[in-house]
Amino acid sequence: MPTTEHHTSKQFDAELETIRAQVLQMGGLVEQQTVSALAAFDDEDTVLAGRVVDDDHRVNALEVKIDEEVGTVIARRQPAASDLRMLMMVVKTITDLERIGDEAAKIARMVQQIHGADRGTTPRVEVRHMAQVALNMLRTSLDAFARLDAAAAARVARQDEQVDAEFRSVTRQLITFMMEDPRTISNSLDVLFIAKSIERIGDHSKNMAEYVVYMVKGKDVRHTTVEELERTALEPLP
Amino acid sequence: MPTTEHHTSKQFDAELETIRAQVLQMGGLVEQQTVSALAAFDDEDTVLAGRVVDDDHRVNALEVKIDEEVGTVIARRQPAASDLRMLMMVVKTITDLERIGDEAAKIARMVQQIHGADRGTTPRVEVRHMAQVALNMLRTSLDAFARLDAAAAARVARQDEQVDAEFRSVTRQLITFMMEDPRTISNSLDVLFIAKSIERIGDHSKNMAEYVVYMVKGKDVRHTTVEELERTALEPLP
Repeated sequence: MPTTEHHTSKQFDAELETIRAQVLQMGGLVEQQTVSALAAFDDEDTVLAGRVVDDDHRVNALEVKIDEEVGTVIARRQPAASDLRMLMMVVKTITDLERIGDEAAKIARMVQQIHGADRGTTPRVEVRHMAQVALNMLRTSLDAFARLDAAAAARVARQDEQVDAEFRSVTRQLITFMMEDPRTISNSLDVLFIAKSIERIGDHSKNMAEYVVYMVKGKDVRHTTVEELERTALEPLP
Repeated sequence: MPTTEHHTSKQFDAELETIRAQVLQMGGLVEQQTVSALAAFDDEDTVLAGRVVDDDHRVNALEVKIDEEVGTVIARRQPAASDLRMLMMVVKTITDLERIGDEAAKIARMVQQIHGADRGTTPRVEVRHMAQVALNMLRTSLDAFARLDAAAAARVARQDEQVDAEFRSVTRQLITFMMEDPRTISNSLDVLFIAKSIERIGDHSKNMAEYVVYMVKGKDVRHTTVEELERTALEPLP
């Protein structure tokens, strides 16, 4: 049962602040995991890849911990609508963060698979730019969360279209590679799955950006067009 | 601000029951979307595939609606720890359901792509069994949610290993196909992405099953081994 004891709003604010800080800490770790996984791919560094795989449990532990804290705070306080909205969006946000962590670990495992055994030619397909855009989306959505900045969140949604377009382009390049030299097929599929993981990191970042718009504007912009999201994000609060 | 008015526990129970019923309604729709997408692939039915793509917005709308209702109920009532745990797991569950809906729509779009234009030979690779297992996982996890059945939920986690193994087998078969006849590469990749979507439907179903174990047992079994999950699910409540 929730306690009936009354708390000062100051204490409650401090609790909310702690939770927000923990989300950002988790975000920082997930960002680091993503950077490392992409660097491992670029540098063919299987040791670094192994570290990313090993560290995934730290991301998972943070998700479980924050979920619990949110539950405790809701049970103990009786949050007003806007605070509750924030707490529910925290629960959604950390689910996406945890899945970005999963994608980083998947990328790292692919790097181990490609370079762990002598598996023949790896196609030289450029995913670096696509990766930079996705990483930028992740950083911007975390910044937007930290500063409750709906305009920054709207920019993330726009970048997602770019990542999707680059993913289609990478797929086409890989098809050409595979057709020219079928011996590259196995490794090409691994690179394709790495590109797919990068694309999903973009998707999850976009989800987080949508939660920020909802927290700030109180309007659910999931499942709307980018234009609608931008309009909502940029319109002045009533 | 939450109202301070007191409500009977009966009214509150009715509200929780309504939310649970809505989750099951959303689950039923998502299951139907998945069945239709897989049937569209089997029967090369682009009309059915188009219907799945068109209906995805119904799944999305239910997610937004249930999220709102959960927020309203938490704000109005002061749920005890176990009810709150259930409501928070509802929020997580419908996120996974929405993403299963997305995967069904992705499968349907691939079917449109493969059969919409004359794109040459489609590899005859068997994904039907893998699809049946994933669909069974989805159904069992919804049943487990409906009946708060932790033992059924544990079975879902075990089946996920089977889907993952079948995905690896499908990938190997597709590689063989592509190497033998590079003209099949484009369509093979589409089939590969369909298999990937099926694998992800399994993953999301496993997530939902883990939430059920948490709701029933109060112990978080995400990020543990299947054995640990089974032990938790099957041990008698204290």
